[in-house]
Amino acid sequence: MKFLLFTFVGVVHLFSLNSGKAIYKNDISRRTFQEIKEEIARYKDVAKAIINLAVYGKAQNRSYERLALLVDTVGPRPSGSKSLEKAIQIMYRNLQEDGLENVHLEPVKIPHWERGEESAVMLEPRVHKMAILGLGSSIGTPPEGITAEVLVVTSFEELQRRAPEARGKIVVYNQPYVNYSKTVQYRVQGAVEAAKVGALASLIRSVASFSIYSPHTGIQEYQDGVPKIPTACITVEDAEMISRMASRGNRIVIQLKMGAKNYPDADSFNTVAEIIGSKYPEQVVLVSGHLDSWDVGQGAMDDGGGAFISWEALSLIKDLGLRPKRTLRLVLWTAEEQGGIGGFQYYQLHKVNISNYSLVMESDEGTFLPSGLQFTGSEKARAIMEEVMRLLQPVNVTQVFRTGEGTDINFWIQAGVPGASLVDDLYKYFSFHHSHGDTMTVMDPKQMNVAAAVWAVVSYVIADMEEMLPRS
Amino acid sequence: MKFLLFTFVGVVHLFSLNSGKAIYKNDISRRTFQEIKEEIARYKDVAKAIINLAVYGKAQNRSYERLALLVDTVGPRPSGSKSLEKAIQIMYRNLQEDGLENVHLEPVKIPHWERGEESAVMLEPRVHKMAILGLGSSIGTPPEGITAEVLVVTSFEELQRRAPEARGKIVVYNQPYVNYSKTVQYRVQGAVEAAKVGALASLIRSVASFSIYSPHTGIQEYQDGVPKIPTACITVEDAEMISRMASRGNRIVIQLKMGAKNYPDADSFNTVAEIIGSKYPEQVVLVSGHLDSWDVGQGAMDDGGGAFISWEALSLIKDLGLRPKRTLRLVLWTAEEQGGIGGFQYYQLHKVNISNYSLVMESDEGTFLPSGLQFTGSEKARAIMEEVMRLLQPVNVTQVFRTGEGTDINFWIQAGVPGASLVDDLYKYFSFHHSHGDTMTVMDPKQMNVAAAVWAVVSYVIADMEEMLPRS
Repeated sequence: MKFLLFTFVGVVHLFSLNSGKAIYKNDISRRTFQEIKEEIARYKDVAKAIINLAVYGKAQNRSYERLALLVDTVGPRPSGSKSLEKAIQIMYRNLQEDGLENVHLEPVKIPHWERGEESAVMLEPRVHKMAILGLGSSIGTPPEGITAEVLVVTSFEELQRRAPEARGKIVVYNQPYVNYSKTVQYRVQGAVEAAKVGALASLIRSVASFSIYSPHTGIQEYQDGVPKIPTACITVEDAEMISRMASRGNRIVIQLKMGAKNYPDADSFNTVAEIIGSKYPEQVVLVSGHLDSWDVGQGAMDDGGGAFISWEALSLIKDLGLRPKRTLRLVLWTAEEQGGIGGFQYYQLHKVNISNYSLVMESDEGTFLPSGLQFTGSEKARAIMEEVMRLLQPVNVTQVFRTGEGTDINFWIQAGVPGASLVDDLYKYFSFHHSHGDTMTVMDPKQMNVAAAVWAVVSYVIADMEEMLPRS
Repeated sequence: MKFLLFTFVGVVHLFSLNSGKAIYKNDISRRTFQEIKEEIARYKDVAKAIINLAVYGKAQNRSYERLALLVDTVGPRPSGSKSLEKAIQIMYRNLQEDGLENVHLEPVKIPHWERGEESAVMLEPRVHKMAILGLGSSIGTPPEGITAEVLVVTSFEELQRRAPEARGKIVVYNQPYVNYSKTVQYRVQGAVEAAKVGALASLIRSVASFSIYSPHTGIQEYQDGVPKIPTACITVEDAEMISRMASRGNRIVIQLKMGAKNYPDADSFNTVAEIIGSKYPEQVVLVSGHLDSWDVGQGAMDDGGGAFISWEALSLIKDLGLRPKRTLRLVLWTAEEQGGIGGFQYYQLHKVNISNYSLVMESDEGTFLPSGLQFTGSEKARAIMEEVMRLLQPVNVTQVFRTGEGTDINFWIQAGVPGASLVDDLYKYFSFHHSHGDTMTVMDPKQMNVAAAVWAVVSYVIADMEEMLPRS
């Protein structure tokens, strides 16, 4: 999961959002809300059957086991890597063998960045080997590295104030962790802001809710006209220590070596499978997660879990012999971590059919025990979602929060399509996010069972109701 | 903090515990318990003054700030290292400058082990660089490393059962974490048990309550007559993955390289300072923590915190112009992590005066917000400790648990001297213990203030009461 603040702005300019207000079908309901409530209540037995199969029945732990097999076999799956290619091929086969329909791959050109060998050593005031993770798209250093004095700041404002001190230095950001979406700007823009004031490199405190000396990587963005400087994340622990040292007046010198390299774009694919709708096959409820990951850990949580509960949703529905009126479409996105490249490509290709999209769903913030859904849509659609979530009373996951989001589905949501995402323990999520710790050890099969049940019930019922979700 | 199960057994054999039943002074109280309660209650104002100074007054955050300065300056302080030597010299000066009395160093010969460069790479079923930490006292591998197939077991029992499969392999222990004292036997004895069945090396799942792909080091012990094989801890994550792979029938091959080396014993010191008793200067209440640490992180938690709240206890008492009847002795142990080497040496040197020791205290399980004290002693002594802990009602730390312990004070406790240790959040403690994550980031100045207040009130009151704590 990558935060999209900046990319978003780009999207708004690239596309006319008016297209999102296009006419769509089946919206003008003549039915009263009471009638809709009754329609939803009739899915109680179906919901129970899905829950029983997922949580207590023979499908229990299946999404966990399937995920473990994939990520143990191929490891992390960064954009442009052989392992991502391998994962896509395996998933293509898996989805076919699972008996899903219209299994196919949609080509996408994706970035290819490799971190290479990297190291950072504090030379003054004492020698200390630092754990780092270079940031996606960063250039490398010269082979001999960059050795320079450090300027520590806690904010962009402090960097501006102390701009004259930054020239020729390595800027260390020791920004406090507020929340991911607020704090991630330092990872994304830290290098550009440091380069503007003449720094040679920037090291950013990892954007993490908790640390055991764990560096966290992620994408960063250069700006046209601003010199490109190497940039990496350091641990919360080292950022705090460097800050303490600086406050005591210590001169701090760091040697940074990064073998990072950007290669030409690589060929990749979004992986698609369906249960084709019985009555409105051209209409779609989209369930999704991304198959790519960062190059550390196993990408089990981000976003193996989201991808595999999405597959599991279709498997559960198929296993129960159900076929909704609308098409349930599973998409496993590629190169989400590079800025939603697969999601963007899919939107460009399919937006002509936007009026056929009833709901877009993405799980990319963990598949721990969910507390409910985040949802963006009209108030009428929200009221419907709240009724649907009542069907999940047996697993006690009934809440509907604001705001539905996901890097790959935001394009649709911005264009007016209702969107939903799964809500769980974000403190836990951002403890492991983009770190070596994103492995199967974080995942809990029982929690994934519940998450898959929620995903399946919501996607099935919305796909099967008489009418599409109403838009604003 | 090192668990002492095995060393303990050794100690029991080395010393006659009967000496613990030696006669000691001032024990046979003619006073009723009511009179003792009243005596303790009269310390209410003194306790309040200590708490106010430590928690709200000008001493607040002092132990944290002092600790940060030391560990940022010298870094981790493994047995036999220059940084431990430097830390001892700094502390000697600090204690003198603080105006404490009888500041001196007591020589100790300590082990000197260095990990050197180390790495582990899984070669089959897929290439994966593994985080490891070699274990203290382990030998290294040949320079080309040891490359061998893996046998994974979850217990010593399973290893016995599968002994014929172990020859020529690397044994990986994926034992579940029960608690530290139960689970640490795999770290301490894993190499010996694997060597007995012909293994070439052993890799042990880190003994940790929580992990973000964090390896945890610690001491291990070879046995006479059993071949020495290299041994290291791997992460919980890798141990679990290897276990999953093995259960799927994968052949797993690992290449292990360790540059670990044992050097001749080094010269070191226990660091001692006192507030000399006004009435019974020969009688002692000992407060302590250890100054050495493992060679990763900063040794801030294990046991910088314990050492520095012990120093702080004396500082607070001195700052208030208090002088107890008995001598308050601060000892900062050396080479605790190698098996309580400094503590053992001190016991050997001072046990002739065992009858003069009223109470031995060590804090070596964290200085987070304490919930109380662990205590070992007679029931009468326990009743007195419970009364003393009532004085800490203002900071809500009043509980007295069983059992007081600490690697360096266990010698005394086994010999019959009452012993106390601080109780706090062990789950948190064992998340960071012996890992790169043991840094100042884990420490909380406010929590250290409270811990120091507890330490100061207890040591002062016990040192100042009319009579020594009664023994069994």
